[in-house]
Amino acid sequence: MTDDTDIRLCRTFQTAPAAVPKEETAKYLLSALEAEGFQAPDWLVPDLEDGTAPNMKAEGLENTIDRVPEYEFPGEIHPRVEWAYDDETYREKGRKQIDRLVAEIGDEIDGVVVPKVGRLEDVERAAGVVAEAEREHGYADGSIDLSIIVETGRARSDLREIAKFGADSRLTAMIFGPVDYAAELGGRDLGEGMPRWDGLLEALSNEASAGGLLAIGGPFDDLFKERAGLTYYNADAYADQVEREAQVGLDGSWSLYPKQTIQANTIHMPTPEELERDVHKIERFNEAKREGTGAVTIDGQMVDEATFKNFRNTVRTVRAIHDRRPDQTDERYDDGLLGRALELELSYR
Amino acid sequence: MTDDTDIRLCRTFQTAPAAVPKEETAKYLLSALEAEGFQAPDWLVPDLEDGTAPNMKAEGLENTIDRVPEYEFPGEIHPRVEWAYDDETYREKGRKQIDRLVAEIGDEIDGVVVPKVGRLEDVERAAGVVAEAEREHGYADGSIDLSIIVETGRARSDLREIAKFGADSRLTAMIFGPVDYAAELGGRDLGEGMPRWDGLLEALSNEASAGGLLAIGGPFDDLFKERAGLTYYNADAYADQVEREAQVGLDGSWSLYPKQTIQANTIHMPTPEELERDVHKIERFNEAKREGTGAVTIDGQMVDEATFKNFRNTVRTVRAIHDRRPDQTDERYDDGLLGRALELELSYR
Amino acid sequence: MTDDTDIRLCRTFQTAPAAVPKEETAKYLLSALEAEGFQAPDWLVPDLEDGTAPNMKAEGLENTIDRVPEYEFPGEIHPRVEWAYDDETYREKGRKQIDRLVAEIGDEIDGVVVPKVGRLEDVERAAGVVAEAEREHGYADGSIDLSIIVETGRARSDLREIAKFGADSRLTAMIFGPVDYAAELGGRDLGEGMPRWDGLLEALSNEASAGGLLAIGGPFDDLFKERAGLTYYNADAYADQVEREAQVGLDGSWSLYPKQTIQANTIHMPTPEELERDVHKIERFNEAKREGTGAVTIDGQMVDEATFKNFRNTVRTVRAIHDRRPDQTDERYDDGLLGRALELELSYR
Repeated sequence: MTDDTDIRLCRTFQTAPAAVPKEETAKYLLSALEAEGFQAPDWLVPDLEDGTAPNMKAEGLENTIDRVPEYEFPGEIHPRVEWAYDDETYREKGRKQIDRLVAEIGDEIDGVVVPKVGRLEDVERAAGVVAEAEREHGYADGSIDLSIIVETGRARSDLREIAKFGADSRLTAMIFGPVDYAAELGGRDLGEGMPRWDGLLEALSNEASAGGLLAIGGPFDDLFKERAGLTYYNADAYADQVEREAQVGLDGSWSLYPKQTIQANTIHMPTPEELERDVHKIERFNEAKREGTGAVTIDGQMVDEATFKNFRNTVRTVRAIHDRRPDQTDERYDDGLLGRALELELSYR
Repeated sequence: MTDDTDIRLCRTFQTAPAAVPKEETAKYLLSALEAEGFQAPDWLVPDLEDGTAPNMKAEGLENTIDRVPEYEFPGEIHPRVEWAYDDETYREKGRKQIDRLVAEIGDEIDGVVVPKVGRLEDVERAAGVVAEAEREHGYADGSIDLSIIVETGRARSDLREIAKFGADSRLTAMIFGPVDYAAELGGRDLGEGMPRWDGLLEALSNEASAGGLLAIGGPFDDLFKERAGLTYYNADAYADQVEREAQVGLDGSWSLYPKQTIQANTIHMPTPEELERDVHKIERFNEAKREGTGAVTIDGQMVDEATFKNFRNTVRTVRAIHDRRPDQTDERYDDGLLGRALELELSYR
Repeated sequence: MTDDTDIRLCRTFQTAPAAVPKEETAKYLLSALEAEGFQAPDWLVPDLEDGTAPNMKAEGLENTIDRVPEYEFPGEIHPRVEWAYDDETYREKGRKQIDRLVAEIGDEIDGVVVPKVGRLEDVERAAGVVAEAEREHGYADGSIDLSIIVETGRARSDLREIAKFGADSRLTAMIFGPVDYAAELGGRDLGEGMPRWDGLLEALSNEASAGGLLAIGGPFDDLFKERAGLTYYNADAYADQVEREAQVGLDGSWSLYPKQTIQANTIHMPTPEELERDVHKIERFNEAKREGTGAVTIDGQMVDEATFKNFRNTVRTVRAIHDRRPDQTDERYDDGLLGRALELELSYR
């Protein structure tokens, strides 16, 4: 049985511009580094790419190097650098950014995020750049993770091959980038928004699972909604998207905003009802097991080893969150239920 | 033109636990072997895997070996053995079960079903185990079929490669296993059930077709429904699933229960209205053909060779069922319609 | 920046039977060649395959050779020939048709369309046939394009490999053929029509994009609808299909009929509202850029380089249409809006 504390958590992948044209250019980065409780993402991604203006990239890099070490951030740190499969200039910028980050704060970051990758060869090239930075600055091989944004037709086309490569490499997460992706394919918003790319999300979940990688959904950028004279945070639409992502087995969702982080952290965590239901089924199953039946009917549903694994996923996720963020599990579940979840016997046989 | 009687039928893939903790441990197996009419599945699958409890596996194997030869079952027999792409212990159990089955009742079974396969290499390994059992016990190469349950991220990832291998091998059917699959991907039931995995079903239908294999949907385990104080068989929800499977071109559906078998046998058989409609269109087309038009409009729809093939599928399926189960076609269609379907000229040119 | 006039346009892929059993056997071909304005397709496809009856194929070929040169057709001409991955007889017919077309009207046609291709090897074989005809009749290598109908399980299975091959070859467009496809997979119409094959369309859009090819949707053959005693053109259902195709990034749609051509030309052209919206956003963005912010919020939506590319697609499509069909852009957009779209600065940096 896998140790539940080995589960890699990334319920929330929150990007924060590394520099903005305000008096305090690190404003958004600092506010993310200071976040607590459900507002703190599992992964904080200081964004040196599309979130930071071209003329502020240099300052964004300095902000990241200066500010990240000042905080004991409860999650992981994965800066996003520049890159483009079809433009050597951007790859060279990315190479320099990765080199600087590893040189200066290699101990403070968990990995880097590389956008706009193309086919497998381009992902391998990005992995090589990270390996080179590790060697150059004395880090052990594999100590800096690589994650990629899947947002080109080529990366989608090679998804299977990329994930197979990922199984034995530093590749850690594949994150969907729907905006660049729609632009590449020529998708159109005819009034009801862009397509959801259900096929891609299903494939992302599958290939990530087959390669032992994390799969993360794309950003939702209609942050605010206007109705009847009022402008307000678009909570429903974001929650709908995150729930769809959770249903197909994505491990986490992209957040652009502290309220989105609260929602994604919450949705990618079993609900108390889900936990109660699955703890109850495992308890009933454990009883049936002692009586020797292989397939039992609980509340009208047949339960066998396969069904059992689904119930177990719920419990293991809660245990992994409890290990990293006990404040969140303590807040979300009542003591009795959490206690049962932590003590339950989880082996099928 | 292909001989319609060459069409391999598997409208229903009914698993039955090979042993259950009751006085008669073969109870469910026997009741399946005794089924008649629409309650008899095209494929009966004595289940030595998840349907039979760990401590009853040995008895399940003996039940299968003892009982299957006692009946003249009208369909095919394909026992499901144990296996796991990531666990040598289970593969060794599977190897022994296959060896015993071929040794003892090799003439009585049509093939074996291997669950939890991984990538192509694992499917080839399973095919090798069957080949070895054939050689060992004096059966001609290819006389025992292999079918697989597609229920891991790896098998889904390699689906195209597996089906290409299947085109020239003993591989016969690919069956979806949604429960293990959802557990592997971390899919979640947030109150509306698990995802339908539409992308996977479409790919399964396509790759099976490209490789000349059968494609079968997954089990539906919410057998019963409770409402207004009553618990009753959940007929609507199962029929909805089977209809969706039929629409995308799956050849059959998984059944866990005699009533499900009746429904799946029925849905994977053209309705009288469908048969009437398509026989009528072919009759009209055959007339138009005699008048020399390539594309004709019948009831507002253009008909050419491609459209024609769809109508022909309907008729050929009915002929194949009539060949194997004349009781079912005689019951379902009136004599006049069935007669027209059996005598129709089906070549386009 | 790519020159907008390099964009290959195929909003409409209109097939016309090359010969029909009427007094003027070229009736439909002539009416397509004479079409003007929104009724003229971007690609006219004289159909020697399923649209022309077997006994009129020879006459269809002569009609195409005789009539096409008589018109200054405003779009491209791509005859569809016979072919079948699994039947040498049809491939030989196709080879002869391609040879005749290139020999006689090689200067008048832009390419040929080959249906019922199988796996990559079969597409390469078709490309070889075109190359041979070019050599034989003194045309430069690559002067005659090849497009394929994706309508077999094998072609769908090899879609990625075919599009990769297409990136460096004469392959120009991949067009979906749902009727043959449904027949191959055994899809069923249970009263609500055939499945939409959403997964295939998404993959077609992606692989075409990754390979630099055009992706075109399949025909809609329920041309007419009957209700309340009246038979009328089924405009809504066709528009729904074309809109779905445009949303997922297909470049164009199949037309069987002049009214369908009007609709597909229109839908695959930005609406005035879309153009106004995206021109407006780029104008606002260009202002923000001058002020140095990387990510700006316009009307509640964050805009960065990725979002920008989507807006730019809209404008570039309009420019490409204006270059080829100024009558259509002049009719569709008011002068002020069109002028802004033509003069806008489109670089992100």
